[in-house]
Amino acid sequence: MSSIVLKRTGQKMPVVGFGLWKVTKSSCADTVYNAIKTGYRLLDGAGDYGNEKEAGEGVHRAIKDGLVKREELFITSKLWNTFHAKEHVKQMAKMQLDLWGLDYFDLYLIHFPVSLQYVEPKDKYPPEWWGLDGGVHLQNTPMQETWTCMEQLVDEGLAKNIGISNCQGSLICDIMRYARIAPQVLQVEIHPYLTQEPLLNFCKTLGMAVTAYSSLGPQSYVELGMDRGVVNLLKHDLIAKVAQDKGKSPAQVLLRWATQQGLAVIPKSNNQHRLLENLECSAFDLSEQEMKQLSGLNIGLRMNDPAEIDPRMAIFA
Amino acid sequence: MSSIVLKRTGQKMPVVGFGLWKVTKSSCADTVYNAIKTGYRLLDGAGDYGNEKEAGEGVHRAIKDGLVKREELFITSKLWNTFHAKEHVKQMAKMQLDLWGLDYFDLYLIHFPVSLQYVEPKDKYPPEWWGLDGGVHLQNTPMQETWTCMEQLVDEGLAKNIGISNCQGSLICDIMRYARIAPQVLQVEIHPYLTQEPLLNFCKTLGMAVTAYSSLGPQSYVELGMDRGVVNLLKHDLIAKVAQDKGKSPAQVLLRWATQQGLAVIPKSNNQHRLLENLECSAFDLSEQEMKQLSGLNIGLRMNDPAEIDPRMAIFA
Repeated sequence: MSSIVLKRTGQKMPVVGFGLWKVTKSSCADTVYNAIKTGYRLLDGAGDYGNEKEAGEGVHRAIKDGLVKREELFITSKLWNTFHAKEHVKQMAKMQLDLWGLDYFDLYLIHFPVSLQYVEPKDKYPPEWWGLDGGVHLQNTPMQETWTCMEQLVDEGLAKNIGISNCQGSLICDIMRYARIAPQVLQVEIHPYLTQEPLLNFCKTLGMAVTAYSSLGPQSYVELGMDRGVVNLLKHDLIAKVAQDKGKSPAQVLLRWATQQGLAVIPKSNNQHRLLENLECSAFDLSEQEMKQLSGLNIGLRMNDPAEIDPRMAIFA
Repeated sequence: MSSIVLKRTGQKMPVVGFGLWKVTKSSCADTVYNAIKTGYRLLDGAGDYGNEKEAGEGVHRAIKDGLVKREELFITSKLWNTFHAKEHVKQMAKMQLDLWGLDYFDLYLIHFPVSLQYVEPKDKYPPEWWGLDGGVHLQNTPMQETWTCMEQLVDEGLAKNIGISNCQGSLICDIMRYARIAPQVLQVEIHPYLTQEPLLNFCKTLGMAVTAYSSLGPQSYVELGMDRGVVNLLKHDLIAKVAQDKGKSPAQVLLRWATQQGLAVIPKSNNQHRLLENLECSAFDLSEQEMKQLSGLNIGLRMNDPAEIDPRMAIFA
């Protein structure tokens, strides 16, 4: 399986992983088990997805059934915004490891460069963006404090690799100034409507691996009631044409557009056929012209922007 | 004269100032004297502009001749990238004040969120982007260290207000988490080709004043040999039409587009007629439709990007 070698540890991160966002609790164990059975080796989770316990159940059933060994899996999770303070980072990493039933994460990311007031897990977990009173409550924990705690997770073996998500260039520059352990991975929204070339070039310069999320574009957000009035990429004429020319599916074309740029991807599917299709997305190449045509769709369209929840969280401004 | 009230101190910052970038040393004293005589009360300087001593001479001649009192002027300067370390910030602010012959700056900004290795002023001043060996040498001074020193300048009365320049949303979010004194002003490149609405909305939310630089667009960079292959805004058909309709100059239209959004501007001119024209740019209003048409020119075109000097300085990625 195609993989990206992480700079610091030399660990191999599979290029195509299975993303656990929006996988319902009730189906999650079976979904994860089946993804592993289908050949997926990277599982991309997060505290915020609310399905870590069930994902872990799927993992352990797969290990028990001899489908895979723990060391053959690459398990990613993410620290949520309400746990950025130094007294909470390790507590949460451990709690999340307990939920999964794991000793370590292969990769642990700061989910957003947004710090929100602590919410007790016993009161609400995952707490999402809002306090118990329904308001958004910022907390003044600088990124440096959180990053220092992330580094300690590596020291203690709770995370093999650490990284960031949803960050811009200037903040990455600042993290690089104080990082004892540089972020190994940046996970960000990337699709042909939001190509982010300058950010990708910067990560290449730094030797930081990039995982693209929402590779299939706006489609992922339709079920959340978000409609930006643009053509669904999966139904876009250009994508359809390239897909037809190549004898591939539109999803495969969109995923290949990312992986051919050296990005990792983490699609999700509930459909066995598409699950396998997605995994095999790198079994063909797009021409230089096709790559350019797809990148030419860029309109800077970002689906996931916390400033829409509260204007004080303008992390992409 | 129209002004913006700074949130923390209540001090009034003139909406139209005179920018000292690219004002040659030999002409600078006369240029500043004449700008003050013409009615300018804000002078926007920087260590990097290499003309602070001469600008100060112009200021003192104007004060001596009774054109203005010190307290009627609003003098801005900026800390250069090579002086971000805690042992250099105050040293440089004092050195810059000495060059100007002033006791305090009204506003002192961090010029770029980029930290470069120290260069002794006696060896080269201003040092620009390169070390004495001609290479770009990053230095690992986090923004927090520099900002803490900036706050001390306020404590000691060396700067009435402090702020930042060339920063993105995510970095501003982080600064707000550790700032004891919040940045009062953000100075960034803004013109109809680079409208930066999300950043402006964020600053509005924070109550942070914004100064637009390069208001006249690519024209400012032509003499630096930079040609992005776009139409000079001063010669753009739409700007020309609006200017004609209003009986104003294209420059006045571009400046008014900024000031009507609540931004401060800092144009420069060597021509007495245009100097006065620029100062009077707020004496008319653009219609809502004209504002929208101008903003509709946005193509995200940034002229001033340090990543073009060295890809590790991708502060706008």
